[in-house]
Amino acid sequence: MVLRNFDEMVEKVKGFPTRKTVALVAAEDEHALEAVLDAEKEGIVRPILVGDEVKIREILAKLNASDDYEIVNEPDCNKAAYKAVELVRNNKADFLMKGKIETAGILKAVVDKENGLGQGRLMSHIAINEVPSYHKLIVVTDGGMVLYPTLEQKKEIINNAVEILLKLGYERPKVGVLAAIEKVNPKMPESVDAGQLKEMNLNGEIENCIVEGPISFDLAFYKEAAEIKGYKSEVAGDVDVFVVPNITTGNVLGKSLVYAANGKMAGLIVGAKVPIVLTSRGSSAEEKFLSLVLAAATS
Amino acid sequence: MVLRNFDEMVEKVKGFPTRKTVALVAAEDEHALEAVLDAEKEGIVRPILVGDEVKIREILAKLNASDDYEIVNEPDCNKAAYKAVELVRNNKADFLMKGKIETAGILKAVVDKENGLGQGRLMSHIAINEVPSYHKLIVVTDGGMVLYPTLEQKKEIINNAVEILLKLGYERPKVGVLAAIEKVNPKMPESVDAGQLKEMNLNGEIENCIVEGPISFDLAFYKEAAEIKGYKSEVAGDVDVFVVPNITTGNVLGKSLVYAANGKMAGLIVGAKVPIVLTSRGSSAEEKFLSLVLAAATS
Repeated sequence: MVLRNFDEMVEKVKGFPTRKTVALVAAEDEHALEAVLDAEKEGIVRPILVGDEVKIREILAKLNASDDYEIVNEPDCNKAAYKAVELVRNNKADFLMKGKIETAGILKAVVDKENGLGQGRLMSHIAINEVPSYHKLIVVTDGGMVLYPTLEQKKEIINNAVEILLKLGYERPKVGVLAAIEKVNPKMPESVDAGQLKEMNLNGEIENCIVEGPISFDLAFYKEAAEIKGYKSEVAGDVDVFVVPNITTGNVLGKSLVYAANGKMAGLIVGAKVPIVLTSRGSSAEEKFLSLVLAAATS
Repeated sequence: MVLRNFDEMVEKVKGFPTRKTVALVAAEDEHALEAVLDAEKEGIVRPILVGDEVKIREILAKLNASDDYEIVNEPDCNKAAYKAVELVRNNKADFLMKGKIETAGILKAVVDKENGLGQGRLMSHIAINEVPSYHKLIVVTDGGMVLYPTLEQKKEIINNAVEILLKLGYERPKVGVLAAIEKVNPKMPESVDAGQLKEMNLNGEIENCIVEGPISFDLAFYKEAAEIKGYKSEVAGDVDVFVVPNITTGNVLGKSLVYAANGKMAGLIVGAKVPIVLTSRGSSAEEKFLSLVLAAATS
């Protein structure tokens, strides 16, 4: 089973027996709040608004929204993060979304050793993209969190992405570890890592997926390109997850899929006990909505 | 002046008073030979076929092509590279194209200290892409030659790309040095380099272009994304040249523009006295043709 597009993911979430609850951290952010309310209207989430109650009520009024949403008043945004984490720990919220707070502020509460949501694993960013030129959703990781992952970190990045896809119903996602070439070349460390990740998969060290690498974008994405080059792999032309060597490659790829290839994207921080939606001011309303859908589908 | 698409480049080359001559190195390669003959039919180039004459004539017969092309017989492909370089040095050919020879073999002849085509500059790869979602051609460099360029090498990579665009008629190309972020961050060396390249441009060390960096893909490519983020730059939404931090980022970006964004591409090695067309077996016939057009336009 694979998801061909975001509509299928939206339908999946709408079919859940109960709505997932999002705790919006420092909810006094008009764009984030609007996105949460939109998702609420669409039947995707139930919101708890954690933050400066006065400001939140002002924005709700401005948006002509109902004023009976659950609000946890905490004007200090960093404390609001801890309160939102507490809601998750007490099973009152299923996942977090960032409002008017720095990313570092929300992550600090999440990774708190005593009262956080860490589970001793690497936290990483995954972007899921829908592009008209591809037959199913495609993950890019990590283009938003881990700067220059080591081999061990890449293994965890793969595990995090695979876990998310399994939660979405995939059975054995196809992972392509990207490089500029298809053969291991000691002069290109990312190709060496890619070869080792493939080995780890064959050895059973990385499970529940098929890892191919090093593999170039065209061979993973386009079956004919692989055929012309005589490159045989289950992942060729049918990749589910692109693993990139560093944040810049991931960021550039993710953005090019959205802006150059007319795609849509959803993004999440994964690896903690629950997913975290970290959209930015530059994110479109659609990206914020789809990220909430993805978080609801996988929390 | 900018080129909006490859058709404009083809028209430009067809308008030249004389055809450029391509020396095809180890011309006994069916795909490369076919591409050269197609470009010849289109009025783009005049070919000299350097290589194994017997095999070349066999392929010409197989392709139902004329047998009166100029052939320089040299069955040893590495020696053929030296002969082709000699043709350029004697002004009998305007640029080179790789046939049935390893890239290293052709480059060895090109960089030969005594009889080569080096000019003491870094050689780099540029890809020019046409994508339906962008209003003009867009360069990606270097996604094919220099693995992990230093700051000084990035400067030369920019100079090489700018020189090619000036030859195409551009006046002051807009260069975006890509990173995952828009601010210099010491934890991300490519953002530091990007900031320094911008400085070098402001200081007059890098000339005839506008360099912006660090800049993310979306801000350089899509004006609205820059407006939402309040990012002001002449390069925002109007970039001509993407400079990438390493070969993998460039390769992934170039391939995603072709395969995910339904683009077309032309590629060249530049920095020697003449351009070199280095297409591979995986390159489409269109890519080979457009690369010949680009080489003819800039040699």
